Amino acid sequence: MEVTRKNFKECLNTIYTAIQEAEFLAIDGEFSGISDGPSVSALTNGLDTPEERYQKLKKHSMDFLLFQFGLCAFKYNHAEAKYIIKSFNFYVFPKPLNRSSPDIKFVCQSSSIDFLANQGFDFNKVFCCGIPYLNQEEERKLREQYEERRSQSNGAGTPSFMSPNSCKGPVVIPEEHRAFIERVVEKVESLSNSTEQSSVQLDPCTGFQRKLIYQTLNWKFSKGIHVETMETEKKDRCILISKVDEDERKRRELQKQEKEQQELADAVGFSRVIHAISKSGKLVVGHNMLLDVMHTIHQFYCPLPEELNGFKEVTSCVFPRLLDTKLMASTHPFKELILNTPLAELEKRLKEAPFKSPKVDSAEGFLSYNTASEQLHEAGYDAYITGLCFISMANFLGSFLSPPKPHISARSKLIEPFFNKLFLMRIVDIPYLNLSGPDLQPKRDHVLYVTFPKEWKTSDLYQLFSAFGNIQVSWIDDTSAFVSLGQVDQVQIAVNTSRYAESYRIQTYAEYMESRLQEKQG
Amino acid sequence: MEVTRKNFKECLNTIYTAIQEAEFLAIDGEFSGISDGPSVSALTNGLDTPEERYQKLKKHSMDFLLFQFGLCAFKYNHAEAKYIIKSFNFYVFPKPLNRSSPDIKFVCQSSSIDFLANQGFDFNKVFCCGIPYLNQEEERKLREQYEERRSQSNGAGTPSFMSPNSCKGPVVIPEEHRAFIERVVEKVESLSNSTEQSSVQLDPCTGFQRKLIYQTLNWKFSKGIHVETMETEKKDRCILISKVDEDERKRRELQKQEKEQQELADAVGFSRVIHAISKSGKLVVGHNMLLDVMHTIHQFYCPLPEELNGFKEVTSCVFPRLLDTKLMASTHPFKELILNTPLAELEKRLKEAPFKSPKVDSAEGFLSYNTASEQLHEAGYDAYITGLCFISMANFLGSFLSPPKPHISARSKLIEPFFNKLFLMRIVDIPYLNLSGPDLQPKRDHVLYVTFPKEWKTSDLYQLFSAFGNIQVSWIDDTSAFVSLGQVDQVQIAVNTSRYAESYRIQTYAEYMESRLQEKQG
Ligand SMILES: Nc1nc2c(ncn2[C@@H]2O[C@H](COP(=O)(O)OP(=O)(O)O)[C@@H](O)[C@H]2O)c(=O)[nH]1
Ligand SMILES: Nc1nc2c(ncn2[C@@H]2O[C@H](COP(=O)(O)OP(=O)(O)O)[C@@H](O)[C@H]2O)c(=O)[nH]1
Repeated sequence: MEVTRKNFKECLNTIYTAIQEAEFLAIDGEFSGISDGPSVSALTNGLDTPEERYQKLKKHSMDFLLFQFGLCAFKYNHAEAKYIIKSFNFYVFPKPLNRSSPDIKFVCQSSSIDFLANQGFDFNKVFCCGIPYLNQEEERKLREQYEERRSQSNGAGTPSFMSPNSCKGPVVIPEEHRAFIERVVEKVESLSNSTEQSSVQLDPCTGFQRKLIYQTLNWKFSKGIHVETMETEKKDRCILISKVDEDERKRRELQKQEKEQQELADAVGFSRVIHAISKSGKLVVGHNMLLDVMHTIHQFYCPLPEELNGFKEVTSCVFPRLLDTKLMASTHPFKELILNTPLAELEKRLKEAPFKSPKVDSAEGFLSYNTASEQLHEAGYDAYITGLCFISMANFLGSFLSPPKPHISARSKLIEPFFNKLFLMRIVDIPYLNLSGPDLQPKRDHVLYVTFPKEWKTSDLYQLFSAFGNIQVSWIDDTSAFVSLGQVDQVQIAVNTSRYAESYRIQTYAEYMESRLQEKQG
Repeated sequence: MEVTRKNFKECLNTIYTAIQEAEFLAIDGEFSGISDGPSVSALTNGLDTPEERYQKLKKHSMDFLLFQFGLCAFKYNHAEAKYIIKSFNFYVFPKPLNRSSPDIKFVCQSSSIDFLANQGFDFNKVFCCGIPYLNQEEERKLREQYEERRSQSNGAGTPSFMSPNSCKGPVVIPEEHRAFIERVVEKVESLSNSTEQSSVQLDPCTGFQRKLIYQTLNWKFSKGIHVETMETEKKDRCILISKVDEDERKRRELQKQEKEQQELADAVGFSRVIHAISKSGKLVVGHNMLLDVMHTIHQFYCPLPEELNGFKEVTSCVFPRLLDTKLMASTHPFKELILNTPLAELEKRLKEAPFKSPKVDSAEGFLSYNTASEQLHEAGYDAYITGLCFISMANFLGSFLSPPKPHISARSKLIEPFFNKLFLMRIVDIPYLNLSGPDLQPKRDHVLYVTFPKEWKTSDLYQLFSAFGNIQVSWIDDTSAFVSLGQVDQVQIAVNTSRYAESYRIQTYAEYMESRLQEKQG
C-alpha cells in the first residue's frame, strides 16, 4: 500500500492494526545519499572501532534525507500455516507546515539520486505528497506553543493546561506598542458597550502585536468576547473580536482546541508510525540496517547522541528488539551455506535447498508483491523480501530441533542470539555492533599504525614491509594506514627497524589507541 | 522548447542558431534552495557592504543546485516591427557519467522544494533526464585523462598530443604487479607468434593494472596489436588484445579518438550552452539576477572567487553585458511609475500606460507562451517575461526622444546606463552591485553599531534610543545590530552616553568598519 500525505490520515488505523497484529515487522529506508565523506574507503576502514564507525556515519551520513520508508507487517496464520503480510510504502518529506515550521535542509548525492532515478523512483511523489514529520523536540515545542496560546486566549481557565510561560497578571507592553494596544482596548470597550455591533476586525499587524493583544484582552476581558486570528484574502493575519455569550465562547474555544489538536497530529505526521512501531515492542527486522536505524532515530526522534553508548541506549528505547538479516546470514550456521549477502542475492539463495521459501499471502486490499518480477529498491518491497529472508533462516534453525519444527516464530528462543546485533560493513574482525552490551574487542596485536608522506601509494607500503610476507593495508587517510602483519612476533621487529626512519613512522595498534585516548582526554 | 538529456544533442544546433541571431537573451534559473543561512534577515542585513553580501551569498547559497535554466532568445524583425522569440527550458543534473566522475553533493531546502512542487515542477525530469555538465577545471581534467590514455595507447605518435604525464621509456612497475604484467607480456608474445589466434581477452583486473598493461604494451609492442578495454556482461572491465595490420590499427585508434571526443562533449553537456551565450557577447537580461549569475558561474565555470573583485572580473569575462530588470525598474524614470518590482507584478504593470506591451511571436516550432495563463516559475517562462519587461522599459525610454522612437534596440546608448548593475536585495542605501567598477560608498555616519546581551529584543533597542526619536534597526546577529539615527549629530551623543554602560556597547559605523578591517589584516 502506497501512503502519502493525501491518504495518510485515512490509512492510519489500518497501519496501527497491522502493527498490532504482526508477529514481526520488517523495515527498509531509501535515502537521498549514503556518504558525504571524502571517500567510501576512508569512511569504512577495515579496522575501525565500532565507536569510530558510529562517529563517521553520524558525521557523514545524517544530512541526507530518509524519504521513503518501507514497513511490512508479517502475521502468522496457524490454521493455514502461512504468513499474511501487509506492506506499506511511505513517502516522507519535511514540508514546512507554516511560517514557524523548521525549514529543513538536506543533502542529495548525485550518484544515489541517479541510481534511484534509474530504478524508476518517483521523486515528485516525495516532494509533492511526502508525509511531514517532527522529531520529539519539535513536537514538544509545537505543543508548548499551542498550550501557551491557549493559556493566553480569552477565558483560559484550568491551570493544568497552563505552560510556565503563560502570564496571568497585566502584560508588560513595550513602549512603542503601548499606544497601539490602548487603541485596541478602546475598540473592544466600545464593542462591548455597543448594541448594534457584534464583532470588530482589527487591521493586520505583526505576530508580536497579536500576541500582546491576546495577552491584554485575556487579562482585561475574561468574559463576553471571543478573540481569534483570521487570514485575509491577501494572506495578512489579523484579529477578529466577537461579542459572545458564555456558552458560545466555550463552544468556540473547544472547537479551536480540537482544531489545534488536529494540526499538531498532522504535523507529527509520519513520526506517529514510528512511535507505533516502537510502542508495539515487536521484533523489527532489517537488512544491513545500521544506517536505517540511525536515520530513523535522527529524523523522527532526536539528534543522534554524541557517543556510541548514548546511541545504544536511545536505540534500545526506540527499538527494543532488532534483527539484521545480513548479520544473521553472515553467522553460523548460515555463513557456511550463503556466499553472497546483498539482499537480492540472499533472497534468491534462500529459495534453494537446504532453505525453503515460506508460504506468504498478501492481506485483502493489499497489493501482492511478486518476487519473480523484482521491484528492488522500493522500500516496501525491500522490507517485504527482508522479512522473507528472516523467515527462511528462522525456519532453517527449526530443522535442527528434534523433532524438526517447520515454523519458528519471531518469539522463539532459537533466534534470540541474533537480537540487537547490527551488521558492520567491511570491518575485518568485528562482525556486528552489539546494541545490548559492550562490543567485541578483537586482539589487534598484529596490526601496525603507519604514517608516511602523502605521495606514498599502496605499493610503497608493500615495499616497506616486503620482508614480512603477506600484509594487509587499510588506508586511514592520505598519510596513514593500518598494516596487518601475518605474524604477531613480526610487530616488534617492524617497530624496531623503523626507529631511525625519517620519512615514515610505525606504532603498534596499542600505542596508537593509547595516544588517541590521551588526545581525547587532554 | 523543453531540453533534457534525451534531446540535448539534436537541439544543440537550434540553440546555437537562436543565440547567434538574437538581439538579446533573457535567462532565469531555478534552484534547490535559496539560503542555507541562520535566517534570511541575518543574510540580508540592510547595511551590508557589497563585499559582505557577496560573501554571505557565496557561503550560504552555492551548495544548492541550479537544476532548471531558462533561456529566451529575442530576435527583432524590423519588417514586421516585432520580436520573434525562441524559448528553451533546460533541465540540468550532475549525473555521474562514469566511476571517475565527481559525485556531486547538493543541498535542498524544504521550503524551496515545497514551493516548486506546488507550482507543478517536475523533479523526475530533473533527476532522470537532466543534462550533465562540467565546470572548466573538470573539463580540463577529463580532457587530460583522455590525452594521457591516448598517449599511452599502442602506437601513439604525434608528440603534440602527448601530455607531460605520458612516459615513453619502460614503465616502473610496482613489485607486487610485476609477475602479473610479465604473464600478460607472455600472452601477447604468444598471440603475436600464433597463426590461429587473432585476439586474447585478459581476465578482469583493477584500473591500475589496466593502466600498467597499456603502458607496458605500448612500449614493448608499438605495432601489430590493438589494445582496448571491454566491459563484460557482469560489468567487469577487462582488456582485449587483437592482432591487426597497421591500417586496421590506425582505423581503430581513430575510431576510439572520435568516440572519446564525443564522450567528452557529452560530459561537458549543458556548459556548452553557457559557453555559447558567453562567446556571443550578447546582452543577457535577468530579473534580480545576482544569484542566477553566481550559480551559473559556480556550476558551469569555476568555484566563485574569494573576493568580490575577483567575482566582478570573472563575471565580466563570462557575461560581458548584463542587465537586471529589477534594478532597471527601481531606477529613474521607472521607479516613479512602478510600485512593485517582483517579476509577475512588474510584468502586469508594464502592460499598462504609459508603458506598452511589445509585439512578440514565438518562432516556428516553438511553443508560444501566453502571459494570461501564467506559467510562472518555469525558468523558460520567467526568462520570457523578463525579456518582455526589458523591451517595454527600453521602448519607454525611446518615447523621450524627439522624435520619439517606438523601438529601442538592445544596442542603443539609452540603455547603457543600466548595464552591469545587479540589483542588491534589501540594502537600504546601495541599490546595485556595480560589475564594471567600484561600488557606491554611501555615507553611513548616522549609523551606530551596537552590541548587547542576547536576551535583548527590538523593543530594548527602541527603549535605549527613545530620546533620539525615530530609529531604524538592522539586526546583524543575536547580540549585535546597526541602529540608524535620524540625525548625524545625535551619533556622538549616543556614543558618549554609552561610555560607562556595562550591558551594551556602541561604536560609530566608521569605528566598526575600521576594527573589522584590522581583524582581517591582523
Ligand atoms: N520579545 C519581542 N519579540 C518580538 C519583537 N518584535 C518581534 N518579535 C517576535 O519576532 C517574530 C517576528 O515578528 P513579526 O514580524 O512582528 O511577526 P510575524 O508577522 O508573525 O512574523 C514574532 O515571533 C514576534 O514574537 C519585540 O520587540 N520583542
Ligand atoms: N599509484 C598507484 N595507484 C594505485 C595503486 N592501486 C590503485 N591505484 C589507483 O587507485 C584507483 C582505484 O584502484 P583499483 O581499485 O585498482 O581500480 P578500479 O577498479 O578502476 O577502481 C585507480 O585509479 C588506480 O590508478 C597503487 O598501488 N599505486
